[in-house]
Amino acid sequence: MAVLNARSVLVTGSNRGIGLELVRQLVGKSNRPEWIFATCRDPEGPRAQELKNLAAKHLGVEILALDTSEPSSVKAAATRVTEWLKGAGLNLLINNAGIIKLRTLETETPDSMAEVYKTNVIGSMLVTQAFLPLLKKASQESSQKGMSCSKAAIINVSSEAGSIKNVLVWNVGQIIGYRCSKAALNMLTRCQSLGYAKDNILCITLHPGWLQTDMGNKLGKPPLTVDRSVQEILNTIPSLSEKDHGTFVNLDGKVLPW
Amino acid sequence: MAVLNARSVLVTGSNRGIGLELVRQLVGKSNRPEWIFATCRDPEGPRAQELKNLAAKHLGVEILALDTSEPSSVKAAATRVTEWLKGAGLNLLINNAGIIKLRTLETETPDSMAEVYKTNVIGSMLVTQAFLPLLKKASQESSQKGMSCSKAAIINVSSEAGSIKNVLVWNVGQIIGYRCSKAALNMLTRCQSLGYAKDNILCITLHPGWLQTDMGNKLGKPPLTVDRSVQEILNTIPSLSEKDHGTFVNLDGKVLPW
Repeated sequence: MAVLNARSVLVTGSNRGIGLELVRQLVGKSNRPEWIFATCRDPEGPRAQELKNLAAKHLGVEILALDTSEPSSVKAAATRVTEWLKGAGLNLLINNAGIIKLRTLETETPDSMAEVYKTNVIGSMLVTQAFLPLLKKASQESSQKGMSCSKAAIINVSSEAGSIKNVLVWNVGQIIGYRCSKAALNMLTRCQSLGYAKDNILCITLHPGWLQTDMGNKLGKPPLTVDRSVQEILNTIPSLSEKDHGTFVNLDGKVLPW
Repeated sequence: MAVLNARSVLVTGSNRGIGLELVRQLVGKSNRPEWIFATCRDPEGPRAQELKNLAAKHLGVEILALDTSEPSSVKAAATRVTEWLKGAGLNLLINNAGIIKLRTLETETPDSMAEVYKTNVIGSMLVTQAFLPLLKKASQESSQKGMSCSKAAIINVSSEAGSIKNVLVWNVGQIIGYRCSKAALNMLTRCQSLGYAKDNILCITLHPGWLQTDMGNKLGKPPLTVDRSVQEILNTIPSLSEKDHGTFVNLDGKVLPW
């Protein structure tokens, strides 16, 4: 089985849910990344306590404030990471920060639609724009051929709820703005895959499963724990390569329909 | 060949491009709709003059102010149409209003992304919410079985540029925010098709072609005139039925991939 050999990883929205679990399991790997940048909106707030406890126990887990809806915040975080890396690149960017609103066709509103789009799509785009120089650097300094998450990659955390064909869990929640945002995020990933192919930066949009997280629980009874999901994701991503570039991948690595 | 027998049609963004041509060709049909509601942001502005000239020549073409980005404007237009229809329903709603911004992965901005999403996705959603009671009424009062554009239908004017698989015309323009908005609009249409199936309202997302319009010309040299496109669209839509419900349809009626 392929192994993740990324020297540096950045995870947005890492104070809870999938983001927190990704950081937790990454630090526990024998070949763990030297640098794990764990970002969240408010590292000093009560909801970041678990992440702070985790970082206190492990060297190389750096917590950064990053509000994906604030361009200045995104830029400041990129500057700090650049300083930390001292000329090295960033191997793996995981755009995980996201929100959901429980709206239906009847109750959906312009403000709710706009807010969800701002975080889930515009935020991911901004973060990628800001960290692109570091991803390019990682790609250039690597001696590996082809594409991989160990070399230079962007993983956008999407959802099969945003598969226009599958519209997963429609019966438990219409979540219109969320679905529209994830379909748009899938398009953004596809565009990034076309634009960044020349830089050998792997671009993937990933469905992590319907999970027992704060977000997933809002919809009903999710079948999967976040622990199991992240185990599977971390088994899957080392095997992703140029054959998967620009595709929508399930946590087990299988391709999902748009 | 099937014939469109809609008694009432509403077209947003009808002061130019596809919207204006739809109104022009609809009034020229021998079995033309009795009521054609032609909406645009500013009917008193210079850019609505052609539409005004057209309406002056034809009875039953009613011009209404409707800014899809303003909930109060959408609501006011729905109230006026309801009064005009005197208890009858609206057969066909064509959500055509849309904008584009020539941005790339590098130059795309939060404001541009948000503005395009607001018009192309949120606007379509708002208009449909507001006119849904009239569409339901048209469906209920019809003696036809199944679904059709003559009975009760929503056509969202999308673009193959928003097909995540095909990403049409990537080489002539990245137009990131526009592509993301159209992928999201396709998802919205899919959701509407699931939500409104019980009301027998046909929901379609349509690619009108890459056209010689103000919008299309921004990208280069479009192959198709708006006149030819609208001829083909008006030949296609009378044949659409429940078999097409919730799909992404090319102007010639063929299904496009998401």
